[in-house]
Amino acid sequence: MKRTAFYLSDGTGITAETLGHSMLSQFGDIEFVQVTLPFVQSDQQTREAVERINRAHQEDGVKPVVFSTLVNNEHREILHSCKGMVLDLFGAFLNPLEEELGVRSNHKINQSHAIRDADSYRIRINAVHFALDNDDGARTRHYDQADIILIGVSRSGKTPTSLYLALQFGLFAANYPLTEDDFDDLRLPKALQEHKTKLFGLTINAERLSAIRSERKSNSKYASLRQCDMELRALEAMYNKHNIPYLDATELSIEEISTRVLAMKGLKRRLQ
Amino acid sequence: MKRTAFYLSDGTGITAETLGHSMLSQFGDIEFVQVTLPFVQSDQQTREAVERINRAHQEDGVKPVVFSTLVNNEHREILHSCKGMVLDLFGAFLNPLEEELGVRSNHKINQSHAIRDADSYRIRINAVHFALDNDDGARTRHYDQADIILIGVSRSGKTPTSLYLALQFGLFAANYPLTEDDFDDLRLPKALQEHKTKLFGLTINAERLSAIRSERKSNSKYASLRQCDMELRALEAMYNKHNIPYLDATELSIEEISTRVLAMKGLKRRLQ
Repeated sequence: MKRTAFYLSDGTGITAETLGHSMLSQFGDIEFVQVTLPFVQSDQQTREAVERINRAHQEDGVKPVVFSTLVNNEHREILHSCKGMVLDLFGAFLNPLEEELGVRSNHKINQSHAIRDADSYRIRINAVHFALDNDDGARTRHYDQADIILIGVSRSGKTPTSLYLALQFGLFAANYPLTEDDFDDLRLPKALQEHKTKLFGLTINAERLSAIRSERKSNSKYASLRQCDMELRALEAMYNKHNIPYLDATELSIEEISTRVLAMKGLKRRLQ
Repeated sequence: MKRTAFYLSDGTGITAETLGHSMLSQFGDIEFVQVTLPFVQSDQQTREAVERINRAHQEDGVKPVVFSTLVNNEHREILHSCKGMVLDLFGAFLNPLEEELGVRSNHKINQSHAIRDADSYRIRINAVHFALDNDDGARTRHYDQADIILIGVSRSGKTPTSLYLALQFGLFAANYPLTEDDFDDLRLPKALQEHKTKLFGLTINAERLSAIRSERKSNSKYASLRQCDMELRALEAMYNKHNIPYLDATELSIEEISTRVLAMKGLKRRLQ
């Protein structure tokens, strides 16, 4: 049985999607066709959304689930006339919040991701460019500016994690790849030695690493299970020898790795 | 008056934060001290969270606002004993959803960002590496694999947007910088000509661009208002001449730019 989930928003839809994914992941067995309807900002657009929801209801034979972050009262009223099951975020929480805070909210649409100040935009752009310029050990001379330096073997998730830390938290995250050459005597590469307090290690399950590397270079020594296993054993020995905090990223998403790194290193985010 | 907002989660806290930011942005005048408490996964940790909330209550003299995505019933019960105002996401929506879907949810903690399958992890990593390899016009020979090619002048937001499209939607996003040389005759650079349908332009307000560039190279011709203005006029003429869809990114966040690009180009995301 097919069931449709709608994410409805006057803005990007990201809040509605995030909430929806979170709720629906609690019902692992049901498969949802997911539809995001962003930038719904007028009566007319809301009525069109209602029509799409009603069409899905007719086609599926069951009620669509609708996660909505619409703020405008008239639009919310129109939405509630649909044949889906509406989970209305602002409907549920905004009134109680207004009462507690003792003020009326502005009920302005599309507030949530608007840039509140040019500062935070710049922090973010600068963080992203820092991550790029200091990706994969390309440069090491700016490590004094880094908030964190991720280390690990090739394709263990360093780059996406650095970028996520930059985009989400505005952190200056460098990353440095450890290779076979570094494992000979388990000494830290020179570029890392003087920044030891900033280091954070990633590791990963050997089978998983081998599968990821195979996508890039199949049937190579680089991707072989034997090579991956060898590198990872040496890597973890290195982390342990130098007391470098580290994390097994195998079962984790980029979001989870990033937030755990943040917590384990006690880093203060530069963006809220 | 200081008021504290808590984001409480058994996982990364990202859902609670996203929702919280969205709600609080409706109350622009109140300043919140924001505290994220992620990975709250036991009775003990929940009680510690309650203590922190109560401490903030005492210090602030007003109730903290608590956005919670705790799933476990016992933990939620402990949380509700706190002196904050609890906005309990799963409390509000999970029961009605269970009724509509006709199944009990698994109430498992920390589900939402867990990797559901290794596939989506790989799509994401591959997309991020594609964005990096094809950043800033570095290479153009893989444009046949691109879902989208962002174009614009230096520092107009192409790189962060490419990376966000990769991380959030798994899209293969390349980007290519247009420079003074390209504006002489308003002809599209050769590398772009055969991929015209994939092009999407960014533009930005000249004052804003000048400010961003000044951070990088202050008092340079590159950052001067005159230069920025000249480049942007030529750029928009170029977009218009070649019928390239484009967006003014000045007042938009990376999330907004990305989701608008997605909508305007009708791109299908590779990740839900």
